[in-house]
Parts: sequence; C-alpha cells; structure tokens
Amino acid sequence: MFGLIGKITVVDGQRDTLMSILLEGTTGMPGCLSYVIAADSGDDNVLWVTEVWDNSESHAASLQLPAVRDAIAKGRPLIAGMTPVATTAPAGGHGL
Amino acid sequence: MFGLIGKITVVDGQRDTLMSILLEGTTGMPGCLSYVIAADSGDDNVLWVTEVWDNSESHAASLQLPAVRDAIAKGRPLIAGMTPVATTAPAGGHGL
Repeated sequence: MFGLIGKITVVDGQRDTLMSILLEGTTGMPGCLSYVIAADSGDDNVLWVTEVWDNSESHAASLQLPAVRDAIAKGRPLIAGMTPVATTAPAGGHGL
Repeated sequence: MFGLIGKITVVDGQRDTLMSILLEGTTGMPGCLSYVIAADSGDDNVLWVTEVWDNSESHAASLQLPAVRDAIAKGRPLIAGMTPVATTAPAGGHGL
C-alpha cells in the first residue's frame, strides 16, 4: 500500500470552504482505501489530508480524474501552502 | 470526530516488530473509525499512526482496553521517541 500525510495551510478564513471542495471532489477514486480530510485542532488555517492507496499508480491516476482536477482548480486559490509531511507504506489497521 | 497523527521513532531495526505489535493490539476498538499504521518511506526507523475516532472519549477509553495496554507494554521498549504531530477534527473522507 501507498500512503501520504499532507499538511495544507489555508488562506485565512477559507478552511471550511476548502474542506468542502476536497470532500466533494475526492469520492469514488479507484484504488483509494482511505482518504481523511481533517481540520487541525490547534490552528484554524491548517488542515490535514491522510491518504492510503492500494499503490502509488492509483494515486497518480487519481490526479487525472475530472472531479479531482476540478477540486484542485477550485481549491488552489484557497491554499497558502502545502507541506508533504510523509510518504508511507501502510502496513494495515482499521478502516482500510 | 476526533483524530490524531503521530510519528513514532523506533529503536534501530525494530520497526517491523513494533508494527506487528500495534497491528495485533489495535483491532476491535469501540468508536475507532480509522487506524492506520504505516512505515515512513524515507526513514527505516520511523512509523506513522493516523487515527480517527467518533469522539475523544472513545480514544481515551481505548487506552484502557487490555489488548491496547498489552501492545503499549510490549511496544514501549522498541520506541525511541514519539512526536504528536497533530490533533484534528476530521471532516470526512473515504474509509471512515
């Protein structure tokens, strides 16, 4: 499995809007085992995306999906910064 | 929902052992919506645990479960360091 942990810094006051864009655009992605969009509890302008895919090819392919491309286009103006915190090899767990 | 992102630095060469201990001890936890144990792809001595719970009380209660307590006891000697990277409020996603 292939995993990503990413930290997104959002343009002030736009986190809820960005989260709804991401929630809407990231459903039904082939090979996606887990995709969690979460608000940082300590910083109103940070959100976290944690992902698990069956493999990295599925993740790469997802970036070409119309709904994902649309979400990226809509979301980009609301993003002040993106930090790729970790690339991982998930071993397992609950909810995959 | 309540989420955690944690980075565990493992005693040299012990990551696989610690991951199997965690995998074994973290099943069937009431209120757990997602619990992913993943090896960092860039550092052989780092693993990530990303968690989503229905609420923080369920998470706190899980620490009293016999299997979890057992895993913590077994795993502790293999842990060189733990970094609580983020506490979150998951908004949704896939696999929850």
